Amino acid sequence: MPPPLHPPLSLRLHLLLRSQTLTPLLRRGSSCDAPLCRTRRYISVRASAAQLASAGVATAQQPELGVEEAVVGFVTGKRKATEVAHAVWRNIVQKGDTVVDATCGNGNDTLALLKMVADETARGRVYGMDIQDSAIESTSSFLKMAVGDERQGLVKLFPICHSRIEEIVPKDAPVRLVAFNLGYLPGGDKTVITVPRTTELALQAASRLLSSGGLISVLVYIGHPGGRDELDVVESFASSLPVDTWATCKLQMINRPIAPVLILLNKK
Amino acid sequence: MPPPLHPPLSLRLHLLLRSQTLTPLLRRGSSCDAPLCRTRRYISVRASAAQLASAGVATAQQPELGVEEAVVGFVTGKRKATEVAHAVWRNIVQKGDTVVDATCGNGNDTLALLKMVADETARGRVYGMDIQDSAIESTSSFLKMAVGDERQGLVKLFPICHSRIEEIVPKDAPVRLVAFNLGYLPGGDKTVITVPRTTELALQAASRLLSSGGLISVLVYIGHPGGRDELDVVESFASSLPVDTWATCKLQMINRPIAPVLILLNKK
Repeated sequence: MPPPLHPPLSLRLHLLLRSQTLTPLLRRGSSCDAPLCRTRRYISVRASAAQLASAGVATAQQPELGVEEAVVGFVTGKRKATEVAHAVWRNIVQKGDTVVDATCGNGNDTLALLKMVADETARGRVYGMDIQDSAIESTSSFLKMAVGDERQGLVKLFPICHSRIEEIVPKDAPVRLVAFNLGYLPGGDKTVITVPRTTELALQAASRLLSSGGLISVLVYIGHPGGRDELDVVESFASSLPVDTWATCKLQMINRPIAPVLILLNKK
Repeated sequence: MPPPLHPPLSLRLHLLLRSQTLTPLLRRGSSCDAPLCRTRRYISVRASAAQLASAGVATAQQPELGVEEAVVGFVTGKRKATEVAHAVWRNIVQKGDTVVDATCGNGNDTLALLKMVADETARGRVYGMDIQDSAIESTSSFLKMAVGDERQGLVKLFPICHSRIEEIVPKDAPVRLVAFNLGYLPGGDKTVITVPRTTELALQAASRLLSSGGLISVLVYIGHPGGRDELDVVESFASSLPVDTWATCKLQMINRPIAPVLILLNKK
């Protein structure tokens, strides 16, 4: 059985997108400060094989990347940090899990997560968030093209700030993974970015939500003004987590100073 | 056929160790400044199954760790950076290769490397170095207990500073991997450490020696005075390498501030 949802959250994705209606609570939460929750632009997408591949989603031509291939590829400059992230996720996430994409953007991570949790039991859930309505629409369109309606129904999308995760995920749903893609949207406007204050709140919320054995995955884009400030916030948060209950680590290119940094926080 | 060695280098290990004799050139090279080349203490070893396992060397009970298990274990706080390093090495190093252990210490890495290059052709070579005679003796004893004489003959050990790699590796031997374990020796005296100046020279030499497709692997222990200075030097060197010919990356625990940092430099 799928975990029960709070009444306002059980709205089907297509209804959510059609009406763009959320409860007042979801429109503006006390933890969400409008000037901080700056919107991110999205780029329209088509679920081509190339995009599915770049999203780390297996296609007939390109099977799923394992951790070994992804990490050795990263070390040798042939694979991206996001591919390492997806490969690690696949080792953590199981069919039927509840997971969160805290920054949907184009929907790449959302789709990758959906493929990880979806099975014939239809118990898996992906809760997706993005402060910008258009990003949610983009993600929805992408999912529609990439998977059938039935699987798409496992995804619940919300156009709200990522600091408000706890308002959308049912309290009795153990969360296995929360994924963040911070900074500007690749291919988008680099001046439209996530910001440290709400990211910090989002990480705090994610750490409360996460079940034992779960993972918070943060890919921090740093090649724009403010990017290193946000990295500092994430690292500071990661370093504050107690070693007896958390393992936190960082994977970073050194001679590509603006390459995104992957930070993984595992709740023991 | 094994690659030809320079006459002074073709001395067999047992002769080298018995006489502790090196040519004057090897005793004091122009690049080696005695006050910088401080010796490191060693701990005596026995090649127990536990030590072989901790050295990343497969035993009947504990098979070799793959990259996937090592990296996911690292992310979840169950595996060490050195286990990730060894797993990555196994993906880079091939039977018959020439490799260098630039800081032999107890011989753990030396043995792991020997197992990676040794096969029935006896073409593989491990060139091992340590500034301290006793570390070389310790490594030799460890190898003697862990492998037969025949395989041990594939290892050439030299009690010299790691900045002098180029003096011991034959010029026509393409080097696939150079491994560094910097800082104090685990279990040893933390005041006896490698130092930034000779480490920088050693990295420069290693980068010249390395063949295309090869790897410089640097594990930097930072939990002692001077450790972070040495990390700075390694990171600075790694960041200076051109992206068109090198991929350099870093793997680091965040909430264990004195955990060793793994830096990998791949020559494309």
